[in-house]
Amino acid sequence: MREFDTIAAVSTVLGEGGISIIRVSGKESLEVVNKIFRGKDKSSALDMKPYTMKYGHIVEISSEEPLDEVLISFMKGPKSFTAEDTVEINCHGGVTPTKKILEEVVKAGARIAEPGEFTKRAFLNGRIDLSQAEAVIDIIRSKTELSMKSAVLQSGGRISREIDSLRNKLLQTIAHIEATVDYPEDDLEEVTADRVKEELEEILINIDKMLLTAEEGKILREGLNIIIVGKPNVGKSSLLNAILMEKRAIVTDVPGTTRDVIEEYINLDGVPIKIVDTAGIRETDDIVEKIGVEKSKEKIDEGDLIILMLDSSRELDSEDNEIIEYIKNKKYLVLLNKVDLKNEFDKNLIKDIESKYIIETSAMTGKGLDILKERIKEMFFGGEVKAGDVIITNTRHKEALIRAKESLNAALNALEFTLAIDLASIDIRNAWIRLGEITGDTVEEDIIDKIFSEFCLGK
Amino acid sequence: MREFDTIAAVSTVLGEGGISIIRVSGKESLEVVNKIFRGKDKSSALDMKPYTMKYGHIVEISSEEPLDEVLISFMKGPKSFTAEDTVEINCHGGVTPTKKILEEVVKAGARIAEPGEFTKRAFLNGRIDLSQAEAVIDIIRSKTELSMKSAVLQSGGRISREIDSLRNKLLQTIAHIEATVDYPEDDLEEVTADRVKEELEEILINIDKMLLTAEEGKILREGLNIIIVGKPNVGKSSLLNAILMEKRAIVTDVPGTTRDVIEEYINLDGVPIKIVDTAGIRETDDIVEKIGVEKSKEKIDEGDLIILMLDSSRELDSEDNEIIEYIKNKKYLVLLNKVDLKNEFDKNLIKDIESKYIIETSAMTGKGLDILKERIKEMFFGGEVKAGDVIITNTRHKEALIRAKESLNAALNALEFTLAIDLASIDIRNAWIRLGEITGDTVEEDIIDKIFSEFCLGK
Repeated sequence: MREFDTIAAVSTVLGEGGISIIRVSGKESLEVVNKIFRGKDKSSALDMKPYTMKYGHIVEISSEEPLDEVLISFMKGPKSFTAEDTVEINCHGGVTPTKKILEEVVKAGARIAEPGEFTKRAFLNGRIDLSQAEAVIDIIRSKTELSMKSAVLQSGGRISREIDSLRNKLLQTIAHIEATVDYPEDDLEEVTADRVKEELEEILINIDKMLLTAEEGKILREGLNIIIVGKPNVGKSSLLNAILMEKRAIVTDVPGTTRDVIEEYINLDGVPIKIVDTAGIRETDDIVEKIGVEKSKEKIDEGDLIILMLDSSRELDSEDNEIIEYIKNKKYLVLLNKVDLKNEFDKNLIKDIESKYIIETSAMTGKGLDILKERIKEMFFGGEVKAGDVIITNTRHKEALIRAKESLNAALNALEFTLAIDLASIDIRNAWIRLGEITGDTVEEDIIDKIFSEFCLGK
Repeated sequence: MREFDTIAAVSTVLGEGGISIIRVSGKESLEVVNKIFRGKDKSSALDMKPYTMKYGHIVEISSEEPLDEVLISFMKGPKSFTAEDTVEINCHGGVTPTKKILEEVVKAGARIAEPGEFTKRAFLNGRIDLSQAEAVIDIIRSKTELSMKSAVLQSGGRISREIDSLRNKLLQTIAHIEATVDYPEDDLEEVTADRVKEELEEILINIDKMLLTAEEGKILREGLNIIIVGKPNVGKSSLLNAILMEKRAIVTDVPGTTRDVIEEYINLDGVPIKIVDTAGIRETDDIVEKIGVEKSKEKIDEGDLIILMLDSSRELDSEDNEIIEYIKNKKYLVLLNKVDLKNEFDKNLIKDIESKYIIETSAMTGKGLDILKERIKEMFFGGEVKAGDVIITNTRHKEALIRAKESLNAALNALEFTLAIDLASIDIRNAWIRLGEITGDTVEEDIIDKIFSEFCLGK
């Protein structure tokens, strides 16, 4: 195991809470904490046994003034999250005590950890592989129980085992080829080529199976991105509130009050749905309003599904048409809202839109919301998603699988048309490398850095 | 010790963090957690030694499906925060896993804790007194290091010891009086009355000393509440940003963009200053704007200091006068802002305001901000505040001290004018009760409930 310096960070969310944890990891972690810890029973932190705790105070290193009552716990490497010696300081929650104690930990010799650096160490120290490390942040960010369970399985090595098994099979295949190439006089080439083809086809079936899960997996992990759009005062915020069943966005009867883009998650049968309420996209001279419109267009461009709201109590106007024009090449649903009011709307004006994509709703009475939810499910989820399956939730994994598939197809091609099994061997090795990117066995350092930089602080 | 039921709550701030803690406290805490904990080494949580940890998984109680990797730690009562058996589950941070595990803890037999209920148990179980319990939340909410250190001292019993000593002295005095009243034939009354007077006067000196610290103490704890007011576009948000040295409020050149009241804390030599930026108070028909104006007026009424901003590049107008009229009976400072621009302002129009309360500033260049800070310190802080002193930071404590003082003065009065030491004795007992309210020895249950209900969840 490599030896790293000692790092520290606040591992809980910073705010007004009951407890905060400052995590210290590295070979000097116990020494660092010992400098500022005064145990109630006068004993030194250095004498701590693994997996035990001690009660006492953290003191200011310069003045010995007590800063806070704490519990410290010690996990000896490799049996710790980072696989290094780790000390956790549990102090009173709250921003000021937590930050102050971290400051003293740094004065005592630790360095502030970068985002994801604890998990990165667990990876670099070989305790977990890259897909398991990525699952850690997926657990934290999971929006529903289903996406959490799927991430927990991945963190337990579910995907790694599948990938490792495929990679082992590829290695065996490569070994067959090499044995053949080494003894050309045996004239085994043709026999081997057939056998290799069979083996590769079997592996391709497995890769395709995993790729099939990727679309639903991505939605499971990141949520389905639904954008609500419509001109001011059509009832976007009311719809969002009706779906969320609580007052979150400001709702008044003045057009243009949703100044910022509001994002909320709902849980649709275990699948997280991100709903983005927008400020409308009408042309405006108001500077603040203008920023909102630009943000709205950006969000529409990123959306998986656009929900266009029209006011059925008014006639279609140029602003509505402007929106329709803007979104017409996206996946969208049209809501005819305010059906509880008098109907002034001429449906013929939107006759180009397939009627099954038009839903009559009333955000005020709740009419039509169930149909809306059903329609969303139909549009995006083929089968029922279960956490127990191997699901590819990560775009990086998906891309690696696609690349591996391409290499294997190239290998099959080489075998088919050139009968050159040594050429195929290069492609197979490439596939083996691509799959290794998922578990991190064959991944570039800058990719690793990028992955961990997206982690939250303190993990 | 009374035995309470087993309660549970998330003790860390909920959000996307590295670690969350679910705290379980009560006589059944180990049994409850054991139902859903599966140790890596197959050993039962029931065998845990105090102050040790175990690594494993929390499983769903219905399906035995693993929910998250966790570390559990066990603190046996009375050596725990609540003085009861306590188990803490450290799981991956993040809202979904944390909530889900709490759900399973409840299914396993715990009840969701009320806000402050863990600390309340520490109090009811006699581990800490009421002023120490109140200090716990003060530590968490502390805005500066100075206010934190002051709260840490209070949590360590600094105020309790002072109050206990005064109460003991009062008890002795009552004992003297009773001895005298019991043996009236000894004719000791007059001698006793003189001695009692002396004793009470000494105690009053101590109470006055503490009360003297209360104003600064309140500011230390709650922060000084400064309200920035001025008509739209005068530069309030820019001032706030200049003080905060970062872009927080939206600053544009369109009047009326600060729709909501914005509150920020700055640290002025260790004293927290809450600065509230307001939406202005002009009459308006815009509904959203109107809400802002109402909020502004509310905030002005609560403020310790009002900072009125005038635009020195324009003439004083009716809106400025409207604000001056509204705030004239408050403590306020006038900033003549935008002095970097051409001067169109006639100072004679505000000649009623003492010139030392008028400061020329430029939020753009930073001119005048140091003078502003100095002036605030002069206006509110007599001496230098140090954390080492006994400081009364809590309004409840201050009120109890005032009541105790009143009772002691009444006792002195009785001794002076009626020579009735048995009458004085009643007042002295009242003072003893009032002081006991601070430590919680003589406090009503509904007061206790109110205090803990203001705590955060999970503490």
